[in-house]
Amino acid sequence: MSDKPEILATRTIAESRLFEIQEVDLRFSNGTEVSFEKLMNRGYGAVLVVPVIAPGRVLLVREYGAGVDRYELQLPKGRVEAGEALLDAAQRELREETGYGARRLERVTGVTVAPGYLGHVTEIVLARELYTAPLPGDEPEPPGVVEWPLDDLPALVARDDCTEARTIAALYLVRDLLNNEEDE
Amino acid sequence: MSDKPEILATRTIAESRLFEIQEVDLRFSNGTEVSFEKLMNRGYGAVLVVPVIAPGRVLLVREYGAGVDRYELQLPKGRVEAGEALLDAAQRELREETGYGARRLERVTGVTVAPGYLGHVTEIVLARELYTAPLPGDEPEPPGVVEWPLDDLPALVARDDCTEARTIAALYLVRDLLNNEEDE
Repeated sequence: MSDKPEILATRTIAESRLFEIQEVDLRFSNGTEVSFEKLMNRGYGAVLVVPVIAPGRVLLVREYGAGVDRYELQLPKGRVEAGEALLDAAQRELREETGYGARRLERVTGVTVAPGYLGHVTEIVLARELYTAPLPGDEPEPPGVVEWPLDDLPALVARDDCTEARTIAALYLVRDLLNNEEDE
Repeated sequence: MSDKPEILATRTIAESRLFEIQEVDLRFSNGTEVSFEKLMNRGYGAVLVVPVIAPGRVLLVREYGAGVDRYELQLPKGRVEAGEALLDAAQRELREETGYGARRLERVTGVTVAPGYLGHVTEIVLARELYTAPLPGDEPEPPGVVEWPLDDLPALVARDDCTEARTIAALYLVRDLLNNEEDE
């Protein structure tokens, strides 16, 4: 098991409202020196919510993604705000995007999207015991809400508009977790 | 179902060797106008390989991730080169990172990492019938190779160093796919 590379220098090479691109000079334990570009996503991390609306059924939202220039079906998600607790951020995003609140919220795990150049962590939160509690969000248009059965994930992933890796990972993780609870 | 927002203007606001940050002005079908930042990842897309070394057992690689500043266990992956076919890129990355080639390569599906600001698609490729065929790569140090059983994904995801959403999604997708093949 190798020691972590030594960080020799870090420089900001480009900046925008949302992003900061850094160049990092590294020396690996075998002496190799390289420079990597790294993207700093400003903010306090993100939260991805798996809302269980009925046994074995979850809610997805349909929202425009500027990166892919199409509507995508995804689990509700958003940024954690300054000073906001993780489960409070999950509750807020859930209410803003689906119109439901949850009486029961639990952190499942944290995932990353590109460890090679992004430090960003998204915390997956399981939301159960939903009740109607809409909250106005900052979305340019209200998201469409779609119910999906957890026992039919292959059909969901086969769609052209459900491609986001965190959503797919979270749905499988929660399906296994709920199946294990049933077995207990 | 809403019409896609109209793209009013696109501007490059920051650039580096690897990235280009664009600002996109959009008008939604309800009249709302907003500007989104979008990250253009230069290149021809990426490939993520699920190498099956023995029935129900896959290979993972342990590599330093500059974004998270730690070693991560991930499926072998890399950029597709100019003019390179998808399965050729998968074969090359597999040989470079694990020292194995595959006699059987199949595309599973394409996933995205952040549809809101990244257009980038990663194609998941299932690799079977492996044989020893190392190829020197451009990694600063040779990746460590770890074998993992597909029937123990919860223990893998529970680790602090296996967090990448595409890896988790691909492992679950392939586990289901191989289980379904067995049932047929």
